[in-house]
Amino acid sequence: MRNNLYTPTDIFAVARNEAEVDNLLNTDIYKFMMLDFILTKPEYKDIVVRWKMTVRSKDVKTANVIPKESLIEQLEFTKSIKGISEADASYLRGMTRPDGQRLFREETIEFLKNFRLPEYKIGVDETDNYELEFTGPWSTSILWEIYGLKIINSLYLYHYTKKEKLTNVEFNQIINETLNRLYKDIGIFKETPELTFSEFGTRRSVSTDFQRMVFDILSSSLPNQCLGTSNVMLSREFGLANPRGTNAHELRMIPTALYDDKEKIVETMYDIDRQWANHFPGLSILLPDTYGSSFYFKNAPKDIIQNHNGCRFDSKDPLIAIPEYVDFLLKNNIDPKTKIGIPSDGLDAINSRKIYETQSQKLGKLTFGIGTNLTNNTKGTWPRKNENLGPFGSFSVVVKPSEIQRPDGKWVSCVKLSDNFTKATGEKNRVQFFKEIFGESGVEKKEVFV
Amino acid sequence: MRNNLYTPTDIFAVARNEAEVDNLLNTDIYKFMMLDFILTKPEYKDIVVRWKMTVRSKDVKTANVIPKESLIEQLEFTKSIKGISEADASYLRGMTRPDGQRLFREETIEFLKNFRLPEYKIGVDETDNYELEFTGPWSTSILWEIYGLKIINSLYLYHYTKKEKLTNVEFNQIINETLNRLYKDIGIFKETPELTFSEFGTRRSVSTDFQRMVFDILSSSLPNQCLGTSNVMLSREFGLANPRGTNAHELRMIPTALYDDKEKIVETMYDIDRQWANHFPGLSILLPDTYGSSFYFKNAPKDIIQNHNGCRFDSKDPLIAIPEYVDFLLKNNIDPKTKIGIPSDGLDAINSRKIYETQSQKLGKLTFGIGTNLTNNTKGTWPRKNENLGPFGSFSVVVKPSEIQRPDGKWVSCVKLSDNFTKATGEKNRVQFFKEIFGESGVEKKEVFV
Repeated sequence: MRNNLYTPTDIFAVARNEAEVDNLLNTDIYKFMMLDFILTKPEYKDIVVRWKMTVRSKDVKTANVIPKESLIEQLEFTKSIKGISEADASYLRGMTRPDGQRLFREETIEFLKNFRLPEYKIGVDETDNYELEFTGPWSTSILWEIYGLKIINSLYLYHYTKKEKLTNVEFNQIINETLNRLYKDIGIFKETPELTFSEFGTRRSVSTDFQRMVFDILSSSLPNQCLGTSNVMLSREFGLANPRGTNAHELRMIPTALYDDKEKIVETMYDIDRQWANHFPGLSILLPDTYGSSFYFKNAPKDIIQNHNGCRFDSKDPLIAIPEYVDFLLKNNIDPKTKIGIPSDGLDAINSRKIYETQSQKLGKLTFGIGTNLTNNTKGTWPRKNENLGPFGSFSVVVKPSEIQRPDGKWVSCVKLSDNFTKATGEKNRVQFFKEIFGESGVEKKEVFV
Repeated sequence: MRNNLYTPTDIFAVARNEAEVDNLLNTDIYKFMMLDFILTKPEYKDIVVRWKMTVRSKDVKTANVIPKESLIEQLEFTKSIKGISEADASYLRGMTRPDGQRLFREETIEFLKNFRLPEYKIGVDETDNYELEFTGPWSTSILWEIYGLKIINSLYLYHYTKKEKLTNVEFNQIINETLNRLYKDIGIFKETPELTFSEFGTRRSVSTDFQRMVFDILSSSLPNQCLGTSNVMLSREFGLANPRGTNAHELRMIPTALYDDKEKIVETMYDIDRQWANHFPGLSILLPDTYGSSFYFKNAPKDIIQNHNGCRFDSKDPLIAIPEYVDFLLKNNIDPKTKIGIPSDGLDAINSRKIYETQSQKLGKLTFGIGTNLTNNTKGTWPRKNENLGPFGSFSVVVKPSEIQRPDGKWVSCVKLSDNFTKATGEKNRVQFFKEIFGESGVEKKEVFV
């Protein structure tokens, strides 16, 4: 008797008593790139960073859904990973930058071969959500973010269905509907054949197994439009040597926490982009929204304006942010046609198309980073009337650098303002201090879904 | 690396170099019931019957899609099945009629244990469709119909995708869309919780493996509405001892071919229903459309009117046929509330609901037999622009008794008129002869989709 309905064991490693993350390459490429970068900066790599998980979705109660033992079991398994294999090292060693040079220095490869994740701490807060903390030198704690998010997201969906004693047929319906949405999105993408994107949904995917299905469908259905995935392991599995990625807010949030001097903070923010451009020629994608992109553009140093390759739009509406970026370029006598734009915040097929149609002519290239709506398009797929355990489906959860320990032993909050203050993170007084430095012009406040 | 996309090997036995039909129980229960019946009729069981396959869908060219060797391989495999196992015999032996007696006589069980399918003949007609013929005593050729249809239908879909070099992702899209339609239909059924039906889609299912998925979903999602399946093997697999079925037109088409006398033909038609009611007490479901239901009701003998349990509506629009049946009952002073009605022609969730809402109060029970639209709802799921090999998806194909050899050696055409003349089958002169006997009142002409 052959029965091919999807069951949890097809989708969730935890349902097979396996690890959701059993390979360090099961992460976004930019984590390895940032690691490669900070390992060359003695002043950064050993900063002790405390990362904290925050559930931003109301009504989601991860601690009511995920049994603590299951969460610990998964975290322990991942923590026990003993570096990357020789084969994976060889794969990373062979990756190249746009200029043909190696993407990763050999020191980074060696570092990853001997890599160990630092400790985690687990608690439950007053909203019935797990408090996860990862503390360690930036160069090792850096990798917990994606693994932790992958574990939380897949365990939430798995245990939700398990606690509700979902039948296999009901489970199959969820997977079927989610894939049906994906095929519909593909139909929309096909209508705009020049629109390209990368799959950025590693951290919030239903699971690694599901992300693999999604990426298989995307790369096969849209060979000229889906440029790749940010996931290193999946890239290797699918025969690709160019996982897609830029860099993250942490690259500014952690170094700026070292200083209390306003000018030094601003200088540090810009200096990171300068150093990154030197470190990864041709891969200098600005992320100006860390402390508000209006400030960033207004005060950007000449060399950064000249030398960068493009800009990622991660919190402000791209229909506003892209024209702002174009204005900035034109005011500085830079041809926007020499720059790349990468919207990456809460995108789906419909809004990507809208952005593409109205903005693509303004820049040299406009390509998209699309995550949750591809790899975890599960909201509203619950096949029963009541969602007793809170909303089923993807939810807004982040793991962010919360604070660092300065060389003098003092703990200081990391701050992100973003162009959307509901995405701002950091200790209240320190956030206020940063707002005084960077101002609030051009900042909006909107609800965050992913 | 784990990849869970549906591939042809998940759905099609032929893709695994296995047999689509490898168990005699992979058929509709009514075939075994009719076999049980005719084995008690020496005048019927040894009639040599020639069955022929007819593709009724325009543009479908089975011979352009299915390689002859593949078709032969499947037919050979099924022909080589050596009876039913002791376990299957025991399962059939334990089935009961409504009166608690055994459903099958022990002679039938023994007959099935030693069963061998007769020969088949294969050719190609001028419409590029395979001509399949099965010739042998009624008691053995009877089983080829369902197996032959299952093989043709699953091979058509499989080889269509193979010839077009469909990718696994495109293949997955077809399955995904087909299941999505099923879940939508389930949503419609749930809105009318008192509507019940049986899954009658064995012969035209995408495949046995797919039918299993469909029935799993149906029986689990609609435990109080999906009463079962006609498929004996699937019933056993799902723990059910009451596969659903009535009887078929062949039961009239073959015996009436023995005679040239008008009165004898009419008498034979009615006598079959009389004998069936005696043979299977409580399971006397009339199939009045064989030669036109208007004639049938108008001239039905008193004892049949009194003793039957209900009526199946297989060609005339049930919105017309059910009131006609109710009128017939009332004219004969029979309370319609003591009878069951079973529409079974080209049904889906929407039209079943419409029929149920307007007709269910008129009879004691109204329940549906739904086939192709549940197990092969594939029309329009082709994921590319052009359907180069003709229409992809389910198509209208039947295997019908074409002619019989009378005891005197003469071959005579079998005739079915039905309430829809586009469904009529038989040699032209013989059909005309039957039309003269039974008239054409109340007959409509509409396109046949399933």
